[in-house]
Amino acid sequence: MTKLVKPHGGGPLKPLLLTGVARDTELQRASSLPLIPVSSREKGDLLMLGIGSFTPLDGFMHHDDWRSVCDNYTLANGVFWPIPITLSTTKTRADGISINSEIALVDPDNSSDILATMRVTGKYMIDKAHECKAVFRTTDPEHPGVRMVMEQADENLSGPVKVLSQGGFPEKYGAMYMSPAQTRATFDANGWATVAAFQTRNPMHRSHEYLAKVAIEVCDGVLVHSLLGNLKAGDIPADVRTKAIAVLIEKYFVQKTVVQSGYPLDMRYAGPREALLHALFRQNYGCSHLIVGRDHAGVGSYYGPFDAHAIFDEIPRGALETKPIKMGLTFWCHRCAGMSSGRTCPHDVKDQLQVSGTQLRKWLSEGHPVPAEFSRPEVLEVLRAYYAKLE
Amino acid sequence: MTKLVKPHGGGPLKPLLLTGVARDTELQRASSLPLIPVSSREKGDLLMLGIGSFTPLDGFMHHDDWRSVCDNYTLANGVFWPIPITLSTTKTRADGISINSEIALVDPDNSSDILATMRVTGKYMIDKAHECKAVFRTTDPEHPGVRMVMEQADENLSGPVKVLSQGGFPEKYGAMYMSPAQTRATFDANGWATVAAFQTRNPMHRSHEYLAKVAIEVCDGVLVHSLLGNLKAGDIPADVRTKAIAVLIEKYFVQKTVVQSGYPLDMRYAGPREALLHALFRQNYGCSHLIVGRDHAGVGSYYGPFDAHAIFDEIPRGALETKPIKMGLTFWCHRCAGMSSGRTCPHDVKDQLQVSGTQLRKWLSEGHPVPAEFSRPEVLEVLRAYYAKLE
Repeated sequence: MTKLVKPHGGGPLKPLLLTGVARDTELQRASSLPLIPVSSREKGDLLMLGIGSFTPLDGFMHHDDWRSVCDNYTLANGVFWPIPITLSTTKTRADGISINSEIALVDPDNSSDILATMRVTGKYMIDKAHECKAVFRTTDPEHPGVRMVMEQADENLSGPVKVLSQGGFPEKYGAMYMSPAQTRATFDANGWATVAAFQTRNPMHRSHEYLAKVAIEVCDGVLVHSLLGNLKAGDIPADVRTKAIAVLIEKYFVQKTVVQSGYPLDMRYAGPREALLHALFRQNYGCSHLIVGRDHAGVGSYYGPFDAHAIFDEIPRGALETKPIKMGLTFWCHRCAGMSSGRTCPHDVKDQLQVSGTQLRKWLSEGHPVPAEFSRPEVLEVLRAYYAKLE
Repeated sequence: MTKLVKPHGGGPLKPLLLTGVARDTELQRASSLPLIPVSSREKGDLLMLGIGSFTPLDGFMHHDDWRSVCDNYTLANGVFWPIPITLSTTKTRADGISINSEIALVDPDNSSDILATMRVTGKYMIDKAHECKAVFRTTDPEHPGVRMVMEQADENLSGPVKVLSQGGFPEKYGAMYMSPAQTRATFDANGWATVAAFQTRNPMHRSHEYLAKVAIEVCDGVLVHSLLGNLKAGDIPADVRTKAIAVLIEKYFVQKTVVQSGYPLDMRYAGPREALLHALFRQNYGCSHLIVGRDHAGVGSYYGPFDAHAIFDEIPRGALETKPIKMGLTFWCHRCAGMSSGRTCPHDVKDQLQVSGTQLRKWLSEGHPVPAEFSRPEVLEVLRAYYAKLE
């Protein structure tokens, strides 16, 4: 019997991906349906729906769900949900689709790749500024999440989907790419009850290793869970990042205390609301905890550094089974002679070794040495090779 | 409103200490009662009863409680309790005491110090081997806890107590000596909800600092809670220990993340069962968690190193609100270049700096240098001064 947290919503995992003959038949049928291209963000959402990460959703949200998520953090049926999962298309395209008809959703970069079929049971316009204010706490068009919403097409289509593609992720990442059913099976095989997810879109330096190891001290294991969808320009690509993380795990972690995997979502940079979504889908992956660091899923200075901690105390008790492990800024402190955080190191900031991403990129691309207290030599070697190739 | 765990048993704290006029009157009355000396262990239990640490007990256990605690880990009324809290006296003395009469309990070292009065509502003989097998998992007379039970007098007296003394602890330790009501008020003033108790009967070196700091990363605060009762010969006395801990806290912890206090109990060395008692009374002090290390409350090799972890999974869900933070052996690892544990360091034991108590005592009394990775210089200074005085 599993000792893991239950999937979100109280029922079993709900993967919407068809496989085998069912998939082939649907794909055949889909080729005669109107083709609707989706955005990169919508593709990520579809892939998440496919593998069951967005359990218990059936597809893209209806208008009443959209409004309730914005205003009450719940679907119209009362189930907790922090961020709208919606599909948009142009008014012209929408006008050509009648209610209860079916459409095929295609890859934005390759319209011959049919990602899913969808029965359109709703069409609606939204107040985009209302969504942005609710989800991002701002309507500033400089905010990358706001920009995504503002630039999306005018009309939303809603209804249940049948997912037909995994977007190439299993081929690209192999055994590292796992569905919620697969991470749960792995955790069960390890006998784990409590698992902390470590959300990352960066390579792991010693500060991240420390976060993961604190979690290992208090949980049965850690899931290092990399975002494999799109992120900002200048970020380290997912394949380099996962390689750097793999070498860290191999050299500095105890076997069977950590699992590395990834998920296909794009970043929305919604800060606190996205932290809640991160916890929600980690519950589906079988994680009892989510490590929530400083400015989790934030961008620029739109959110206070601990807004994503506070929001977990503001949602109703029982909304999520997955709980935050709230951590501050972490760093090597010369006076502590060890890894510390704002909660455990009382010393002056000048004793604390902090290296910005910009500084590190500069050092690495110039071949400058990087302190071993900041990052493991094996990790730096992977990153140096990447920057050398960039030249 | 407090956000702390509730006291054990579901009701309010139940301190049995009389104060002011009530105490003076009772003390007056007590002087005419039969005087019964108690053992050092029984004195510690009385002081714990006095300040409410053993809530919801009313006094020393009756025969049906004793049996149920040994066999079922509960009082006769079903409330969880892992170790008998009993009073013994000689058969001759017991024969002179009639049921429902009152007695005065006096300090073993000073019979003019009346610790408590007690209405004797029960007298019974116990199967000492049965208690030892249940509580200590052994009847080996070399086990110090077994020896205590085997050497106690033949008959047990049970009944409610009125406690009249604090055994000199408030005078000796000042503000550091706190009742459960006092630690709760302190935690409430700090706004804490989750507090981990760090049980110690030793000075804190870096391995202990690491345990406490892991707890601070995941809880609102830590209670460093020193046993101030009697322990084995050769251990560092409580006043030296608390001084060494105070300097560590001052130099290496963030203010308002840690409270140092102590409690008047003697060690029983009952390993897993004592870990449960440690968690139980920490719940009364307001602690949501107890750090349970390797061989917690063990002695010699009577218990497996993680028996005290496992027992928390064997008791009924809901028996205790206070949960364990299970930690392994902790140490500095030269390859990790940091503090680690068996769960977070994959390296060879030869890379792990481990110093035995015997080795440390030898180094300190010989003025030999001690690695800074093992203990903070400020702590070593306090210990060196103590050993120098011993010479």
